[in-house]
Order: sequence, then structure tokens, then C-alpha cells
Amino acid sequence: MDVNEALKRRRTTRAFEPDGLMLQREFIEELIAKACMAPSEFDLQPWRFLVVRDRERKEMLYQCAFRQSLIRDASAAIIVCGDTRGHEAANRTVKDWIALGLIDQKDALRVETSIKAAYEASEKARLIMAIRNASYVAMNLMLLATEQGIATTPIVSFSEEAIRRAFKIPERYLPVVLVLLGLPSTTSPQPPECPRVPVSQLVFHEEMEP
Amino acid sequence: MDVNEALKRRRTTRAFEPDGLMLQREFIEELIAKACMAPSEFDLQPWRFLVVRDRERKEMLYQCAFRQSLIRDASAAIIVCGDTRGHEAANRTVKDWIALGLIDQKDALRVETSIKAAYEASEKARLIMAIRNASYVAMNLMLLATEQGIATTPIVSFSEEAIRRAFKIPERYLPVVLVLLGLPSTTSPQPPECPRVPVSQLVFHEEMEP
Repeated sequence: MDVNEALKRRRTTRAFEPDGLMLQREFIEELIAKACMAPSEFDLQPWRFLVVRDRERKEMLYQCAFRQSLIRDASAAIIVCGDTRGHEAANRTVKDWIALGLIDQKDALRVETSIKAAYEASEKARLIMAIRNASYVAMNLMLLATEQGIATTPIVSFSEEAIRRAFKIPERYLPVVLVLLGLPSTTSPQPPECPRVPVSQLVFHEEMEP
Repeated sequence: MDVNEALKRRRTTRAFEPDGLMLQREFIEELIAKACMAPSEFDLQPWRFLVVRDRERKEMLYQCAFRQSLIRDASAAIIVCGDTRGHEAANRTVKDWIALGLIDQKDALRVETSIKAAYEASEKARLIMAIRNASYVAMNLMLLATEQGIATTPIVSFSEEAIRRAFKIPERYLPVVLVLLGLPSTTSPQPPECPRVPVSQLVFHEEMEP
């Protein structure tokens, strides 16, 4: 299935068949590994994933996300998190870049310092970096799942605080989106995707008209 | 090319062949339209795109982005923006949802109110929504371009203020990432992608260990 086809076939599933699929831990990890081929700034790969498959845990997640019943019925949920302290991996990036010949050993300190400066610039900068990279991977997860015939729903209405508490997510990781995986309900019909806004209303050329 | 293949083939191109491709306005718009099949919360589609192809405009963008020379050489740049006032489209969403049978007419006001509440909750909430959705589309743009044999580079080091001023981007739209499109340099070699962190270091099951 090519990318365009996967994009067209992806649906935000509104109801799952309760535990309709048995998704192995290894299968989900492989899906995540593939999705992580996303780019990231300074190659920091500032993303983490919490996989929820256990029934009781899904119940907790359901409670944390304003009781959206499809969470209970999904086969698995992946809590995609962004790392707001991605610069702590700056040392690894620098080593990789030297190995790839992108920078010289003598530039190592300068590069590491500038990576740290980017993160230390502001709270907003840290937030943007954490969300942007995690979102790339979440999008890939949805496309890869679609390609495998698995239905997905991105859930963004949840209490950050409740999820942190229930799943022991440290402050440094920001839960960006929950990607639910499963089999679409066999009894309730799946509505089509919402129509898209015509591109002519979204695209500007050379400058935005105010 | 399937999704996994596109993910593997995508490279962050480090140098473009100067104006190596002639990318038509219509071609880029079609790419954007396909990428916009991404999901968005409440189906608000809170993204906008500024396409830069003109040589002088690329020069301006280069200045706004700390003189990264590959910006000048790219065939086109798409400034992907997130809409921090996505709730202004709530009315359209509600109409679409009624037409799709997702909600009843009598729920219209309640749904519209809750969409507005989500955006009005906090500055952080608005930021997250704007970045997450724009990032989904940016990822799709890179995959679709890869599928078409076009090289891409996501640029995130830029002065938000300088870009806003130079390209007349109103406060409501946040520039999230610049996606450069072009032909890889035929003279300077393209390094491989950085190795990825093993998934075992990124994935947690059922809860995160502190």
C-alpha cells in the first residue's frame, strides 16, 4: 500500500470491536521501531512510548481520558510522549555525527552547546520540540497500522495530570497523543472521514495575505 | 512504495542541487492536499501552508533561518503552520458531524462550546493543538515527497519573529517546521541517516519506571 493509499484509507475509528485483535508486544514494538524512522531535530529522537494492553490498565486510561468508551475496547493503546529534555542525548548525537563525517571532533563541544542552548531557550521551545517530534512518530504509527490492516484512533482529550499519575510518567515526558489500535466494531457502522477543506483555502504562495 | 519503504528511504538531505527541480505550484498543492488527510482534533484541520518558490523569497527565508545554505538551493520550501485559533472553524466541524450522523442537531451547541473550551483552556493547550496537527501533515509531506522521488529536509532552526515579519504571517498561525523539497546535491555526498536508538530503550509496557 503506497503512502497516498494509506493516507486515504486511514480512518479515525469511532468504535472498536472489544479486544478484537490480539496484538503481541513484539509486534507493537516493531511498529514503533519503524515509525521512529521519523526525523528529529539534531537527531535527538526525543520520543518515548508507553504501551497499554492490559485490561485493567486500559480501564485506567479510559478514566484518565474522560471515559471515551473506545479506549476500553481497543486492543492496545500507545501513549506517545515527547521528551522535553531531549538535549540530554546531545552527547550521543555528537558521536553519531562525527562517525557519519557530518562534523569534526573539534566541533563536538560547539555543537553540543548549541543543542543545549536550543532546549534551554524557553519553555515554549522545549514544548515545541517535544510535541513536533512525537507527532511525527504518531502519524507514522497510524499509517503503518493502516498498512497492516489495523484500525487506529488518535485520542487527545485526556487529563495530562491523571495520566502522569496513573502511569508513572515523569515530568520530563509530555504525553502528546494516545494512539489506539484495534479492529473496527463489527456491529456499529464506521462513518467516513470528515470532508477536507479545499487546499485553495489553506495554501498561500510567497507570502500570507493578512 | 509502501509506508515502511518510504520511511526507510526518507533522508534528511544535507545539500540540494541548486534549483535542481522545477516544482509546479499545482504539484505542490496536490502534495499538500494529500498530506492533509492527516487526522485533527475535532476535525478542525488547523493547518496552513506558505509555499516559497521564488528565488528572492528563498533568500529571505535563508536569512530568517540562520543562513542554512540548503534553503537557497532547495527547489521549494513549505512553511507548515499550525492554527492557534482552530476553534474558529468549530461551526464547520459541527455541520460536518451532523451531516455524517455523528451528532444530532440538538447537540450542535454543546459540541461547539466544548471545542471552544478546549482551545480557551490555556496557552499551552492552544500550542499543543497547533503543533501536533501541523506536524502530522509535515510528516506526511516528507513521506509523499519521498514516494515521488523528491528529497526533503525539515528545518526547525529559524527565527519565528523574522519569518512572521518577512512573510506576513499573522500571530494566529505558528510556523512549526519548514519542509524543503528538491534534488539532492549531485556533487556533495549525502550521509546516511543517523542510527536509531534501540526500541527497547524507548518503549515501556503498562507503566513507566521512574
